[in-house]
Amino acid sequence: MALRHYTLDFSLTAQADSSATLKELQSVFQEQEMTETVHNIERNNCLVTYYGKNGRFAVVRFQSCGFVSIDFQSCEGDDESEAYDLLNSLEEKMKALLHSNIKKIKRLPALIRGGAIDRYWPTADGRLVEYDIDEVLFDDDSPYQNIKILHSQQFGNILILNGDVNLAESDLPYTQAIMGSGKEDYAGKEVLILGGGDGGILYEVVKLKPKMITMVEIDQMVIDGCRKHMRRTCGDVLDNLTGDCYQVLVEDCVPVLKKYVSEGKTFDYVINDLTAVPISTAPEEDSTWEFLRLILDLSIKVLRPSGKYFTQVRECFSIYIVLYSYFT
Amino acid sequence: MALRHYTLDFSLTAQADSSATLKELQSVFQEQEMTETVHNIERNNCLVTYYGKNGRFAVVRFQSCGFVSIDFQSCEGDDESEAYDLLNSLEEKMKALLHSNIKKIKRLPALIRGGAIDRYWPTADGRLVEYDIDEVLFDDDSPYQNIKILHSQQFGNILILNGDVNLAESDLPYTQAIMGSGKEDYAGKEVLILGGGDGGILYEVVKLKPKMITMVEIDQMVIDGCRKHMRRTCGDVLDNLTGDCYQVLVEDCVPVLKKYVSEGKTFDYVINDLTAVPISTAPEEDSTWEFLRLILDLSIKVLRPSGKYFTQVRECFSIYIVLYSYFT
Repeated sequence: MALRHYTLDFSLTAQADSSATLKELQSVFQEQEMTETVHNIERNNCLVTYYGKNGRFAVVRFQSCGFVSIDFQSCEGDDESEAYDLLNSLEEKMKALLHSNIKKIKRLPALIRGGAIDRYWPTADGRLVEYDIDEVLFDDDSPYQNIKILHSQQFGNILILNGDVNLAESDLPYTQAIMGSGKEDYAGKEVLILGGGDGGILYEVVKLKPKMITMVEIDQMVIDGCRKHMRRTCGDVLDNLTGDCYQVLVEDCVPVLKKYVSEGKTFDYVINDLTAVPISTAPEEDSTWEFLRLILDLSIKVLRPSGKYFTQVRECFSIYIVLYSYFT
Repeated sequence: MALRHYTLDFSLTAQADSSATLKELQSVFQEQEMTETVHNIERNNCLVTYYGKNGRFAVVRFQSCGFVSIDFQSCEGDDESEAYDLLNSLEEKMKALLHSNIKKIKRLPALIRGGAIDRYWPTADGRLVEYDIDEVLFDDDSPYQNIKILHSQQFGNILILNGDVNLAESDLPYTQAIMGSGKEDYAGKEVLILGGGDGGILYEVVKLKPKMITMVEIDQMVIDGCRKHMRRTCGDVLDNLTGDCYQVLVEDCVPVLKKYVSEGKTFDYVINDLTAVPISTAPEEDSTWEFLRLILDLSIKVLRPSGKYFTQVRECFSIYIVLYSYFT
């Protein structure tokens, strides 16, 4: 950890006299022997910074819209409790000065910046999410993607592909959902899994005594990483690439699907567990949507008339559209 | 939204010549007509800020541990794409200057501060989580707690009690898990639900034709809010406080449990769905743990010998300990 970044924000019901309020806050920073720099000072709009020992740095700004923001940065090795004390003092002072003018106070957990272990893994739709990561178990680049497996106390080991959280060991409900939420009878059926390198779907479907499962995963390194570090997800199913009722093909699924189509080979179930932005050795289509459509098209062609196609619907609204336009 | 706060961080393999690098970065800020202030300048440790039009403000700091952090704040109404352009320019410049010295670049989604709709709801264990909230449906204080129901595109409506995310409409797997993951036969059984004001467990158990469900929820306002805004969770089950096979008691569960114990009334299932830090009208115990232990103790006393007790295990590790110490 190189920097802890604290924020403390106040939404006011009306504008505050910023210069008067600032004067009162100054004493808190003076006690910390922090040096003030005024960047802008108007009655309702001002920005002042404070810099002091151990590299402590604060930004206080009043905006005319009635918003007061305080940032406080403390460096590695600095006393965390002193940062809390400072923020508590500032909050108390603001409450005393502006009391009923304060509509809302928001204090976020400190951002931990430059840590050896990265706790922040934003979602595919760009939301900030912090995980309780305490160990990096695997971090390597395959020919296709960066592969990380991180340990979280809450979620178990987490597979992250190209920075996108793929699956955690606690995500059995996800695997069950993509298999049809326990309502499907896989016994004696032929199943095709696209992607699924974490082995979760394979492991769960194998238990249901299908006739044969074929899983087509492009990335050997995902399989190797998950076999070792995601055993709560995949059990022992990735220990061998073939078993009594399954085979794992380490190949790009597009040519495999095309071969099946040309051979007239069909399945009872096709489960598409490819990444949100699927990777291929030779994408023929320019855009992601065209590529998704190609996969969907080929998948439907290898389905028996009574067959079923399962896929995840990710946070991306657009994927709905692809499916919708196909089936309607 | 009053402030967008962007961060752009670089972890270096070795210290960089900060004054030389800074000089090169200056041009990016000069193009933006931002005024520089030097707060500290040493060879391996420096802090410089830039302030400019529309209230744009940046902090650039080099730390001797080989960490470079950039903060950029832009105010409401400012062009978001210009912020991205600025950050892209800074990132490109840093890459050109320090190339192989850069171990890692981390850019988080911008923090949206002072927004009318709050997107940040940290977990009980203090992790920062952003939701795609787009509407506040309910926000009121009951005698017991603050109750919010917010709409998220991804999760549906979300119930937040005292700032702690309680349940989202998409959380059916949670409800199913606390009911025993579909492995329990509730038909003809007597069930006691502690808390559960969102109606989720009640709605799901009612479908399984139990003999009688008694739900004891302290907060009428939670029931009212959820009846209106969490219908994917509770269906129509909260429209009436009594039904063919259920009754809802709007009461503190502790005296109710004590009454049942004294009467010798017992249940086949007790499902504890109280909040992580349960509320009571008259807590007799000083600490949260003692209170949790009291609830557990009373719950076990109203269980038939063949009965089962279900509860959530929250992120808090400590709760494990309470259960563990009881059963061993």
